[in-house]
Amino acid sequence: MRDVCVIGLGLIGGSVLRAASAVGRTVWGATSSEGDAAAARADGYDVMEVPQALRRAGDQDALVVLAVPLPAIEPVLREVAESAPSAALTDVTSVKGPVLDSVRRFVPSARFVGGHPMAGTAESGWRAGNAALFGGSAWVACVEEDTDLGIWAEVAQLALDLGAHVVPIPADSHDETVARISHLPHLLAAVLAAVGAQGGPLAMSLAAGSYTDGTRVAGTRPELVRAMTEGNRHALLPVLDEALGRLGAMRGSLASTGGLAVTINAGNEGAQALAATRDVHRAGVRVNLAAPNAREGLCALGERGGRVTSLAGDTAIGEVN
Amino acid sequence: MRDVCVIGLGLIGGSVLRAASAVGRTVWGATSSEGDAAAARADGYDVMEVPQALRRAGDQDALVVLAVPLPAIEPVLREVAESAPSAALTDVTSVKGPVLDSVRRFVPSARFVGGHPMAGTAESGWRAGNAALFGGSAWVACVEEDTDLGIWAEVAQLALDLGAHVVPIPADSHDETVARISHLPHLLAAVLAAVGAQGGPLAMSLAAGSYTDGTRVAGTRPELVRAMTEGNRHALLPVLDEALGRLGAMRGSLASTGGLAVTINAGNEGAQALAATRDVHRAGVRVNLAAPNAREGLCALGERGGRVTSLAGDTAIGEVN
Repeated sequence: MRDVCVIGLGLIGGSVLRAASAVGRTVWGATSSEGDAAAARADGYDVMEVPQALRRAGDQDALVVLAVPLPAIEPVLREVAESAPSAALTDVTSVKGPVLDSVRRFVPSARFVGGHPMAGTAESGWRAGNAALFGGSAWVACVEEDTDLGIWAEVAQLALDLGAHVVPIPADSHDETVARISHLPHLLAAVLAAVGAQGGPLAMSLAAGSYTDGTRVAGTRPELVRAMTEGNRHALLPVLDEALGRLGAMRGSLASTGGLAVTINAGNEGAQALAATRDVHRAGVRVNLAAPNAREGLCALGERGGRVTSLAGDTAIGEVN
Repeated sequence: MRDVCVIGLGLIGGSVLRAASAVGRTVWGATSSEGDAAAARADGYDVMEVPQALRRAGDQDALVVLAVPLPAIEPVLREVAESAPSAALTDVTSVKGPVLDSVRRFVPSARFVGGHPMAGTAESGWRAGNAALFGGSAWVACVEEDTDLGIWAEVAQLALDLGAHVVPIPADSHDETVARISHLPHLLAAVLAAVGAQGGPLAMSLAAGSYTDGTRVAGTRPELVRAMTEGNRHALLPVLDEALGRLGAMRGSLASTGGLAVTINAGNEGAQALAATRDVHRAGVRVNLAAPNAREGLCALGERGGRVTSLAGDTAIGEVN
């Protein structure tokens, strides 16, 4: 098992460091946050300066996990280019296309596989993390046309070791999908909370389940929501346009015919699609990573809603509806 | 205590009948649904034909509770005009302005107070109801310029007997508020579920808390959502325009400057406004129903987010933040 070097020791990075250590990996970390560094050291972890951590990763050919916020990715990549330019490299940020572009630009010789664990809480910082954070959740490990599947399997194995299931898809597919099922929900919740609050104390007094559910994530820290939505601008714009189109058509229909059946029925079908995904029995799928069409096989599994749940030699074993 | 005649024995009407009986009222009911009638009779309740129930209400000066779906309100009001034209009358439908207009048109001599218990489940029919359905929930009892406060107090007392808190506001204020905090959430959930489902199985696979919370009420039966939203068209259109305006401005901002701070911060403030309402200690307020400005006092209490929690003689005792 390759050693693991984690850059950034907040909620996600700190949880990766703990969980990788807990399964017996040799791990070390670095962070520009003195508070997180001190807290991680106090918990017994090996924490050093970023250049030192990266040089050690280069020397020992460790897997480097970038767990810094999106705006810090490029400065850190410059340090990777300096200290470990051919590192096995992954990340955990919430957009994948822009990070892939930055890696290609700043560290073209890195053996990079983009990653995104779909886990988190509203908390942040080392103290908010825990080794069990990823249990049962999805972890996207990106597959591009030029991805080294040996490194992909190592990133996937790390995610599996941490208790996650691995979703193999290209970066652009990831970004479009999270725009739909994560960024749009946050923005609609913000719109609803703003329109609701315009109703004053009476509105807050009468608000019940539909409102509290629909506005819950509007309570997330604004800087976190801004980082993920603004960072995914390219993929988010067409999804916002879809939502605007549906809302505008609904408004027009209510004003003209008074009917809302099209919108409401489409929403109900969408709710049933989600419920069906969770109900259906999942069948096993195997992808041979040594086969010439392995990348297509992995991506087809991901696009069908499947997940890799284990690796055995050159075989990725997955489940799909 | 006035006797209670409930027309319509579905989830809400059936729960009113059970709860009013449980607190010692003399109750009887009627419904056009043979299934609900048979089930209510099997549970030991006094169920008859609608005209017979209304004639008995007229003879005994009972309080008539209309608990039929909105499209059935006008036909039932014609029967009220026939059999109990000066009845003490309330209803439990989810829009209040259109029902008030219909009552003024079809039964102008009725002593009417519009009502809306803010309680319910996704279920429907007699068997879905229970006497505890209203415990702790808000029950709007409308106060108009010409409302007979004696009848208002009787409707409020029934709601209090059933475990609810009473929110005194005019019908138009109710309709605008529920457009914001109930109907808009249902429509945004439908839009989100439809846009999300366009992402196919991958989107359903990656969907996590923000999506499942944001789409939960999209699973409500479409005919229920249509009845409440389409029935509140007049008040809903300007609220939809507010949401469209905010969403469109956000789209423009993301496309031009790339920033979403205005939207996200407004949403976060809205979420805090809701949380603050639930945290703040509530102080007691008393309204003398015999005073000349009683209607203004009641409505001011409701508009401030307050609730009437008991009645003592001519005094309504309430709480407000």
